[in-house]
Formats: sequence, structure tokens, C-alpha cells
Amino acid sequence: MTELSTGTSVVPVIGAHKGYLTGSRPDIRVPVRRVHLTDGGAVTLYDTSGPATDPGMTCDVREGLPPLRRRWIEERAGNGTGAVTQLAYARRGVVTPEMEFVALRENRSPEFVRDEIAAGRAVLPASVRHPETEPMIIGRNFLVKVNANIGNSAVTSSVDEEVEKMTWATRWGADTVMDLSTGREIHTTREWVLRNSPVPIGTVPLYQALEKVDGKAEELSWEVYRDTVVEQAEQGVDYMTVHAGVLLRHVPLAARRKTGIVSRGGSIMAAWCLAHHRESFLYTHFAELCEILAAYDITFSLGDGLRPGCVADANDAAQFAELRTLGELTRVAREHDVQTMVEGPGHVPMDLIKENVELQQELCDEAPFYTLGPLTTDIAPAYDHITSAIGAAMIAWWGTAMLCYVTPKEHLGLPDRDDVKAGVIAYKIAAHAADVAKGHPGARDWDDALSEARFEFRWEDQFNLSLDPETARAYHDETLPAEPAKTAQFCSMCGPKFCSMRISQTVMDKYGPGGEDELTEEEAQQAMLVKSREFAEAQGRGILPLTEGE
Amino acid sequence: MTELSTGTSVVPVIGAHKGYLTGSRPDIRVPVRRVHLTDGGAVTLYDTSGPATDPGMTCDVREGLPPLRRRWIEERAGNGTGAVTQLAYARRGVVTPEMEFVALRENRSPEFVRDEIAAGRAVLPASVRHPETEPMIIGRNFLVKVNANIGNSAVTSSVDEEVEKMTWATRWGADTVMDLSTGREIHTTREWVLRNSPVPIGTVPLYQALEKVDGKAEELSWEVYRDTVVEQAEQGVDYMTVHAGVLLRHVPLAARRKTGIVSRGGSIMAAWCLAHHRESFLYTHFAELCEILAAYDITFSLGDGLRPGCVADANDAAQFAELRTLGELTRVAREHDVQTMVEGPGHVPMDLIKENVELQQELCDEAPFYTLGPLTTDIAPAYDHITSAIGAAMIAWWGTAMLCYVTPKEHLGLPDRDDVKAGVIAYKIAAHAADVAKGHPGARDWDDALSEARFEFRWEDQFNLSLDPETARAYHDETLPAEPAKTAQFCSMCGPKFCSMRISQTVMDKYGPGGEDELTEEEAQQAMLVKSREFAEAQGRGILPLTEGE
Repeated sequence: MTELSTGTSVVPVIGAHKGYLTGSRPDIRVPVRRVHLTDGGAVTLYDTSGPATDPGMTCDVREGLPPLRRRWIEERAGNGTGAVTQLAYARRGVVTPEMEFVALRENRSPEFVRDEIAAGRAVLPASVRHPETEPMIIGRNFLVKVNANIGNSAVTSSVDEEVEKMTWATRWGADTVMDLSTGREIHTTREWVLRNSPVPIGTVPLYQALEKVDGKAEELSWEVYRDTVVEQAEQGVDYMTVHAGVLLRHVPLAARRKTGIVSRGGSIMAAWCLAHHRESFLYTHFAELCEILAAYDITFSLGDGLRPGCVADANDAAQFAELRTLGELTRVAREHDVQTMVEGPGHVPMDLIKENVELQQELCDEAPFYTLGPLTTDIAPAYDHITSAIGAAMIAWWGTAMLCYVTPKEHLGLPDRDDVKAGVIAYKIAAHAADVAKGHPGARDWDDALSEARFEFRWEDQFNLSLDPETARAYHDETLPAEPAKTAQFCSMCGPKFCSMRISQTVMDKYGPGGEDELTEEEAQQAMLVKSREFAEAQGRGILPLTEGE
Repeated sequence: MTELSTGTSVVPVIGAHKGYLTGSRPDIRVPVRRVHLTDGGAVTLYDTSGPATDPGMTCDVREGLPPLRRRWIEERAGNGTGAVTQLAYARRGVVTPEMEFVALRENRSPEFVRDEIAAGRAVLPASVRHPETEPMIIGRNFLVKVNANIGNSAVTSSVDEEVEKMTWATRWGADTVMDLSTGREIHTTREWVLRNSPVPIGTVPLYQALEKVDGKAEELSWEVYRDTVVEQAEQGVDYMTVHAGVLLRHVPLAARRKTGIVSRGGSIMAAWCLAHHRESFLYTHFAELCEILAAYDITFSLGDGLRPGCVADANDAAQFAELRTLGELTRVAREHDVQTMVEGPGHVPMDLIKENVELQQELCDEAPFYTLGPLTTDIAPAYDHITSAIGAAMIAWWGTAMLCYVTPKEHLGLPDRDDVKAGVIAYKIAAHAADVAKGHPGARDWDDALSEARFEFRWEDQFNLSLDPETARAYHDETLPAEPAKTAQFCSMCGPKFCSMRISQTVMDKYGPGGEDELTEEEAQQAMLVKSREFAEAQGRGILPLTEGE
């Protein structure tokens, strides 16, 4: 067993205080990040960092996290008939403690949560063997979620580095973590990650199965794969990527591509299908797989083995043929009461993004879409967290429920700690921008609180409300390091002599509510006219007529 | 005079070779960045870096760049009647050497360039006093451009730092640079920046005018402003931001905002209007201003003094009332043969972005739109190059011609050299993603070349084709430092034992053109059916019928 360091990522984010919302029973305690403002107010933010950032908890990585959900799971096992999945309970009309937990977390009613899960529009990935998870929900009518990938490879990395990366990722806001390890100590790494993870853990069992046959894809079999799934299920994996949509007849479609099959899982299955000239064992044994996943309440993440690896290959026959099969498999999974989400994108230019969500929602009966990026151009290796944050924000706005992050190391190497942070931050931005654009209830409150702090020169509040308070403060201090500058009524852009914010204050004092020349409602309405698209349209979409003096 | 260092930014980008395309006369030499590939091919990329990256040139910052356009300007002065602007020539049917230069640069015909300029849909900012510029064009039917802001403030920075930042910005792809200096040595800084800049330089003359009245906005006058414009015009500024759309009656509209007026120019003019309770001198003297700009062929950048400073204020009455005035001023400027673009956005959530472009194009008779970002959320100070690259990519896709970059230091401090690079790179990504999404002719060739290199494990080509070859190479070397790894048929993600790219090669060998089981056209068509939106629509937009065996 590798000796594990406790790591440094358990230090709480500056300016934040851990708080809890309590539900109908005392053991439903939903963590929040509370930012107390200097004007006496407070802003409550969603918190994914788990007990590690609670100063009242002593977290020992060798002990693992407290098993928050154990009693809920045991209670249900005691009086259970039928499938134990959240989908099964939702369909039976039961609001589980997990559902109530996410309802509090998302500021929705428990019934709404239950309805969305029952309809298959949302999933609550929470294995009965992973009681450490703080329940969370993935669906287009909830906050957009972000997944961070970690995992070593044959070439690099170690167990404690991966546990550290997982904790680090959740500290910055990762909602789930996928352990994609392929190298040594794959079982041990996963065990430590699971026992210390406050967020659902996803895996791709095919990777470990391939290790078991010494990397020879053609030697894979249903039996080796099934045993691997059971091994991982016993450990507590919450969701599993299964590339069951790569069918024998889809493989030739990839031959017309510029970059072929770039998904690891997809290419493993393509290699197997080609070697045996038989249909994928994941597809032919899919019902058996459903039975295993149902027993543990493991959520399917139906993998997109044929996702495009360059913008030239986007939205092609291979990709959409597989998507159609994923729709079929979604229906099979639901018949077995297994929660299901569907994976998508890769490299997709902006003009082809919307079609991806629309088609997925249609073909997969509104199952949550879980997309990698998409990267909107291929020209920027080392900056693909940015090329893909652009596509991720757009696809989330249009209905994707969870975004799989991309780090600056994509295509070049494995992410280290800094890359994990860069990827998570870029994707939290994309997810939140989508929440705001969707008009998600309350989403803009965070923006408004920060902007008000900015306008009122409450520098400390501005830092503390930032997605990354430490870096915001450090950047400010580089230009104006003196402590008094943080309360100054100016900033480094204009300097003390002239300040646009100060002039705006004058304008508000004069024309704002209660000001000497307060703007009347009629004056405001009049000015708004030009804004109205309807008005423009009424004019036949020509140039708006300019009145005298305009 | 400050002693200027020659700086380190003149080192050419690795893997690139400076080349030139020659026009109809030998002094029309258009620079390009040529990347020679290991497979014998070459990719030609747009190059903004000027003579500094030409190993055949000796650039001495104290001498300035060679005056590329001097002869063209003098020739025209010799036989000139009428206005000397590119717009005037275009309207008279003349294709100037500058137009031919940009036609070669953009792979368009000279007539197309002339037509776009004559229609006002594009501008070619090139002052007759700035012969050092390599002509470039800004318009929605050309490549999307990126502007980088530099400039010191009362608080920080020096002359040679600013010249260095300008050179550094153009090395990474900035198409224009705005010198927004407000502090000491404002005239000297601008002089050195201009004499060493291969790209058009923009300014906001109001900033220097304010310095002249010791920072007291109410003491500004048309006379002080006019003299400042002439001073800067004589130096060779190519385009000027003029906040003439901030009218007295617009100011009260800002009182309803969360963050009031955040534009420096906007707030200066608002302060002046309020102090005098008179209409803005920029608006009342606009025709005189046009005459000055026409004489030097300086392009208007009509400033958006009322742009929203937070997402809550986006697309409001103040913003769109000003936009309407900018449309009116665009028509006045064009009557004077002055080239004109219009500034826009700021903070705008994704769902409100498209309306900005559509309304600007309609109200301003298709004048090129030049937007800051927009930032799609307010919550990420220190990462606003990313929050805004998302909005910038989208607004450019929908028709914005030039993007003003945002650096990680936005809202926090002034950008240093690293921030300038981070901002330019993020915006080159946004601009190129838009070019690809717009289907701009040839834009995707760059992506395709890089993806083909990736697929074929041509690591050196992949690095050299990257937007930032140095960082791409460095990231790769962190994981796999050995030299042989750069020619290896695997990468650090999967390791040597299993590789998805290799499997794809097998698929292509079997089913690709000339393969033993080459896919027929009919088979490919059949598979494409599912892709067709029309097909889905023909089914009443229900679930596509699944045939037997699907």
C-alpha cells in the first residue's frame, strides 16, 4: 500500500465559511459555501468540496470520509422490495433522503426532483456502496454540472497524486470526478479515491478490463468485462461509462474521417469487433449489464466511442449512428430501472453545436446529456481548456446537463494539479454562464452580488465572491500592493485622480431613486423603445425612424 | 527621453518561417507565417508580427520600422483631388495598393475589398501619417480581427514596457493595438509605439485631453479636445475612439443600473454633460471632427460609453439609446468620407448576445462592429479572458468584425507581458473559432492540417502549427521529455501498449479508400440518414423509427 500524504488541498477557500442547510431529518445536512460581506449581507453558494473544507471536521485520508448516506441506504434495504435505484424509487413515488438533499441543494422542491428523476430527465448518481457521497443531481433543469477527469497512465503518476487531484478538483467546484487510471495500482487508486470522495465517482471499466488481458483488445470477453464491472461496483463506483453504442456496422463509417476513432473506449471496442467480426459484447450483453448496475444503483453514462476528434469530423454519420444506438440503449436501461445519461461531443465547430443537443434530446428521450467540451477549433493545443470552454458554455446553454472538463494538457500530456485547477475553473465559468443564460432561478444572484461589490469598491467582498478568490486578490496586489488600496475608492486602471465608478455614483445620486431629478417611469419607457425588437419588427425591420433631435 | 531596450519579443515564433506574397508591383509584399511540415507540405498562416520576426531585417527600436506605405501615400498626394481616405478612393472606384495588399492577405479579390470598403461594411485603418503599418481590413466578410490594449496609467508602467508589450502582442497575433496610456509621457509613449508598430494603432484622445485639464472633466472643452486630436493625428494614429454617442439625455438612463457607467470615456463625457447641463461637445462638433479625421484618413471607432458593466445591465435602455445615436453618427461620418466602425458589448449573458449584433448592424448600416468581449458572467475576476472569450467567439460568429481582448487582469490591475499574451491567445482562439463557424473560405484548413499531423503522430508539425508552439511543446515535454517521444507512435495519455490512433489507422486501411472492404457510397448515405434534420422533421419531430436490428 502506498503511503498517502494528507495533501494541501484541504485548506478552505479564503473568504468562505462552511455552512449547512438542514432538511426534514437531522442527518440531511446540505453543505454550502457562505460568503459574509462587509456590508453585513451574505451570499450562499453551492459547495462541492465536502468535509475537507469544514474546519470542524478532522479528515484523515487513511480513514476516508464519514459515510453520510449509510443509514439511508440501510433503511431502504430493510424494507425494500423491487429495484434499489433512485429511478425506481422515483417511479414508485418515493422521495428519498438523497432527493430531499439535492432539492435543498438546488433550491427546488423534493417533488420536482422526484419528477425529473422519474421522467429520466435527471440522474442522481449515488451507488449503494459509496455512502460517502453528498447527493447531487444531473439534469437540464438543474444547475449545470462539471466533471473533472483524473487518473494515472502506464507512463506516469501515483496513487496519492490522484487522491490529491480529486480533493483539489472538488475544492474548486468539480461536481463529479472520473478516475480514468490505466496504469499500475488501478484497483488501489480507485479504492482511495472512492473512500475520500464527497462527489460521485465515474469510471470506464473497459480500461481495467483491458489491463487484465495485457492490453490486447481482441482478448477481451464479456466475462472479463463483467467481472471487472462487479469488482468496481463492489468498491462503490457511482457511474460507469459503457461504450455499448460502437456497433460492428458503425466501425466502417469512421474510415471516412480525418482522425478516425479518438475515444479510447471506442477504439478498444472497434478493435474487438474487427478482430472477431462479431457484434460488440457490450451491446449483446447489455441487459445483463443493466441487472448488475441496477443492483448497486450505478448510473449508466453511455459512452460516445465515435465522438469527433477534429472539427472536420463533427456531426458525421459515425457520430450520429452511434447516438441513435445510445437512444435505443437508454430505453433498455430504463426498463431495468437503471439511471442513464448519454455522452457527447469532442471537437465541434460553433455552428454545429446546437444540432448535437437537439438530436440527443430527441433520440435519447431527454436523458441528461454529458459532453466533453466541445472544442471549437483544433489549432490551440495547450489552451484547449479555452477552445472547449467556449463550446461547453454554448452546449450547456442549449441543454447539456453536465460538462466534462478539458485541461490545458489535453492532447499533450496528463494534467497535473495546476492543470486540474485550470480545467475546473474554465468549466465552472462555462457552466455558470449557461445557468445565467438559461435564466436558472437565482443563478445571476452571484454575478449581481459581485458586481455590486465592485461598484461600491468593496474590494474584499469582490475577492471573496470570486470563483478563485486567491488569484483575484494576488492579481490586484501585483499592481496595488498596499493594504489601504483594498479600501480605496479607485482602482489601478484609472488611478486616484479620475474614476468612472465615482462619476456613476454622482449620476445615481442625481437621477436614481430619491435623487433630485429622478427619472420618471415614462421617460424610462420612452428610452426603452429602441430596445424593443418588436418595435423594430413593426417598422418592417428597417432603420428605426429618427425623431427630431435624436 | 527614456532609453529603450530592444526587448526579447523580436525572436520569431518557433517552427515558423517568414514569407512574402508579392502583388502587382514589387513594393506590395504581404508577410505570411509559413510552417513547413515534415511530410513535405507547408501551411501558410496570416502574420501580424511585422518586420521584427523577419531574420533578414535588422530592427532597431530607436530607428522605427521601415515606412512601407510612404511611396503609396506620396503618389496619391501627388495626383489627388478630393478626400484621401480609403473610403473615398473606394467610392471613386480606385483600388489602392493598400486594398490590393489586404486582398492578398485575405485571399480575396481586390474588387471585393474595394466593394466592401465602399459599402462601409469594412474599414482599412491606415493613417497617412503612419506609413509603417502593414495594411489590414476589418469587416464581417473578412477574417475576424483581434485588438490588444496597452498603455500605462498614473499608477504604473513606462515607455519601453509599452513598446515591448505592443511588439509582443503583434508577435502573438494582435491585428491592431490601442494605446490607452493616461499617465506620464503619454505623447512620447505613443510616438515610440507608432514608429515601431506594424499594425494600426488606436487611441482614445479624450484620455490625453483630460490629462491636459488636470483630470477635471468639467474643464474639458471642444478646443482642448480638438487640439489633442490634431496632435495625435500628426503622430500617425490610425483610428480613434470617440464617445460622441453619450448624450445629455442618455445620462439619466444609467441611474437605473447596477454598475452605472463603467466606460472611462463614457463617464468623462457624462460628467461634462452633467456639470454644464449642455449637449456633449463631441456630438455638437462632430462634423468638424469628421473634417480632421478625413484629412489624415483616421478611422472612427465610435465608442460605447454606456456599455454594460455587469450582466444585469446588458441590453438596457442606456446601451441601446446610445447605439441608435452611433448609427446616426455613422451616417454623418460617411458623408465626410470617414471610415467608421462602432464599438459594443462589455458584460452580456449568452442569451442576449445575438441581439447586440443584429441591432448594431441594423442601426449602423452594417458598419463593422468592434466589441469588448462580451464577458458572459461577472463571477470570475482573474479569468475574464475566458469569461469573455466565450462571448467573443459567439458575437464574432454572429457578425462582429473585430474583438477587443480582455486579459486576466481585467478589473484587477494593468496587464503585464504575460497577461497580454494570455489575452491575445484567448482572443485568437475566439476569432478563429468564429472564422470556422462562419465557414470563412479556407479558415478550417489550419485546423485540418494540425489534426492530420496529430493523427499521423507528426509531433513536430503539431507543435509548429499550434497557436503557441512553445507552450504546446513544453507541455508535451513535461510528461514525455525524451527526444524519441516526439516521433513515437503513441502519446502520454494511453502509453505505448494501447493506442486509439493506431486502431483507427487499421480501420482506415480496411474500410478507407482502396481498402479491402471500402465503404460504398450507398452505405455511407444510408448511415447519414439519421443525421438529417429534414428526415427527423419529416417524421413530425418524433423519435426516429428504429428498424429491425438497430
